[in-house]
Amino acid sequence: MTRPQLSPTPRSTIKRGKKRAVTDRAVLESILDAGLICHLSVVIDGSPVVLPTGYGRDGDTLYIHGSSGALSLRSALENEICVAVTLLDGIVYARSVFHFSANYRSAVIHGPARLVESPEERLHGLRVLTEHMAPGSWEHSRQPNAKELAKTTVLALSLEEAAVKVRSGGPGDEPEDISDDVAWAGVLPLTQQWSAPVPSDDLSSGWEIPAHVMDRYASRG
Amino acid sequence: MTRPQLSPTPRSTIKRGKKRAVTDRAVLESILDAGLICHLSVVIDGSPVVLPTGYGRDGDTLYIHGSSGALSLRSALENEICVAVTLLDGIVYARSVFHFSANYRSAVIHGPARLVESPEERLHGLRVLTEHMAPGSWEHSRQPNAKELAKTTVLALSLEEAAVKVRSGGPGDEPEDISDDVAWAGVLPLTQQWSAPVPSDDLSSGWEIPAHVMDRYASRG
Repeated sequence: MTRPQLSPTPRSTIKRGKKRAVTDRAVLESILDAGLICHLSVVIDGSPVVLPTGYGRDGDTLYIHGSSGALSLRSALENEICVAVTLLDGIVYARSVFHFSANYRSAVIHGPARLVESPEERLHGLRVLTEHMAPGSWEHSRQPNAKELAKTTVLALSLEEAAVKVRSGGPGDEPEDISDDVAWAGVLPLTQQWSAPVPSDDLSSGWEIPAHVMDRYASRG
Repeated sequence: MTRPQLSPTPRSTIKRGKKRAVTDRAVLESILDAGLICHLSVVIDGSPVVLPTGYGRDGDTLYIHGSSGALSLRSALENEICVAVTLLDGIVYARSVFHFSANYRSAVIHGPARLVESPEERLHGLRVLTEHMAPGSWEHSRQPNAKELAKTTVLALSLEEAAVKVRSGGPGDEPEDISDDVAWAGVLPLTQQWSAPVPSDDLSSGWEIPAHVMDRYASRG
């Protein structure tokens, strides 16, 4: 399957660490699908504010949401926003301090946020968000009522302007440090794992842990 | 031990989710010490840019660094910056989609970045950064030479203006959803773990994995 390449603008063209830049849209999508939270940055009174939040992807659209009263979401509609999703895969131990690094996959998306207004797309965006955060939960759990929908703002961000960086493998040490054998060099890999589901204290005794939760736990990552 | 409380300014006063706000400076420090990367946000041409990067903490100072040519670091000196460190501890499955959440610990720090200029503090900042990223490595590995130092910009950010949020435990469902027993509810915890160290392909055969790397791996988190 061939996929369109990312089309970086001057802003999303990666200037530092070009060898780590990736222009394959499938890699962008895989990073967004593997991440659980994003860091959303907005400008408030001329200064940047960055906050962790949930998200979901449907095709070329990223959905984020929040309380309708949240200053960060209101500010997101006044300026462009930036969203980063980062997966940290390990720490790279080099022979020299200068070449210490991290193995990671990151996606940084720029653009204007669009306020999702139609009831259909609002529900769709919330479904995408919920299914990203907790697959299988939209059908299993009670879906939002009118009062809850009124309290929720849904924003959409196009994936058109995105920069993807991937670093993997060992350190890029200086030749003289390698030949002088000055220090140990290698990678300490880092992984995320689910632990066993913990039923809520107030859950009635009749429940087994549902398949959509057990399957995710069993996937271990 | 009593610690000074965080003193939020209007900007760092948490407006959404107040019950999750924490004002204990020891919690701020524990989050920063447990995290591995931060998300740095700067304003470039009026728009926010957020990037993952390393950091280190010494007392009330956070150090970040990067290539001296990096636009993001130059921009960091022209406006205030914002840094977030987020630890994701699990996904909270609620009876209603509206109450799905995440368990997490987050610190968001605002302020002007200070360019570290004295040679002594530059080295100190890089040591703090290296020891945060890879404890024990400053003494083990080759320390930076003049050429490497010239290529590196070190910034300092005061922890004075910080907002800390912690969420833990099960979902906060509506009473009627609980009594109607509409869905499973609980937490799927998430943890990060080190995997076994992977020596670099070009490492000479004489090396055992050093204690500072093995100890970190053995700590498992």
